[in-house]
Amino acid sequence: MAVETRVYLVRHGIAEERSPAQTDETRALTPEGEKKTRKVAERLRSLNLHFDLILTSPLVRAQQTARILQDCELGKQVEIANELAPAGQLERWLDWLLGWQVEQPRANLAIVGHQPNLGDWAEQLVWGTVRGRLVVKKAGVIGITVPEAMNAIGNSELFWLTSPRLLL
Amino acid sequence: MAVETRVYLVRHGIAEERSPAQTDETRALTPEGEKKTRKVAERLRSLNLHFDLILTSPLVRAQQTARILQDCELGKQVEIANELAPAGQLERWLDWLLGWQVEQPRANLAIVGHQPNLGDWAEQLVWGTVRGRLVVKKAGVIGITVPEAMNAIGNSELFWLTSPRLLL
Repeated sequence: MAVETRVYLVRHGIAEERSPAQTDETRALTPEGEKKTRKVAERLRSLNLHFDLILTSPLVRAQQTARILQDCELGKQVEIANELAPAGQLERWLDWLLGWQVEQPRANLAIVGHQPNLGDWAEQLVWGTVRGRLVVKKAGVIGITVPEAMNAIGNSELFWLTSPRLLL
Repeated sequence: MAVETRVYLVRHGIAEERSPAQTDETRALTPEGEKKTRKVAERLRSLNLHFDLILTSPLVRAQQTARILQDCELGKQVEIANELAPAGQLERWLDWLLGWQVEQPRANLAIVGHQPNLGDWAEQLVWGTVRGRLVVKKAGVIGITVPEAMNAIGNSELFWLTSPRLLL
């Protein structure tokens, strides 16, 4: 049975503006961001999606987004992955995926992170190059079918891209 | 004001199987295809989408799909375009678009057609090359922001890709 992971790349919801009073790492979702993210999560649940694992960037706004997915019963397990932080590298995450696919050869995975990484990674996985041509809104979702991690770049398929506006 | 067309590429719904009894041109939507296409159209309407023009391939299953979009009040005007038939060329359609953009510099356009053309055209418009990596289901939708038609190839943006399964 061929290895194949359905990866749902979820951008964090609307967060507090950057300010001198706090670091980028601690910026939290705004009340509006939390509300809209919850609506998106409820909608994903009503589409019968379920994630075997929710992997999240360590930044507060991403972790909060991941917890909302968990609260809405999209997945039981949330793990933090430094590879998903803004400075993270696709290759490092693919190293992680390689190990995970040994345990879970055909599974659904959510990764919660940031722009421009999510769109760039999706383009690399699907087309092998980055052009910055995917519009990825806050709390938006990209769906990609990823084969074995070692062959994933340029060999994945895009099956979904949506903003909250076109989902809710 | 910059020219910009939001193009919604809609694949026709589920149609009758190929058979020696009829030509490909006359294959009609099945009852299931009609029902699901109508549900998709109703959902698009509930998302407040509206098309200034619905352009369709001349093949029966595409024309029927376009009429369903019209019935569901997604657009008043339906026109047939031979460029959208399975043998159609993206360049020919872009010639048409060039003229339309003179009248409608910022408009919403639906084009109803076939695979693999719709996915291939989307890839050419967004990435400048065809890799066949977009999963476009029957009655599925691709959303692209297209700048001036003469510069559209490789300069468009993808803002939506959805199957009925992830829309309904």
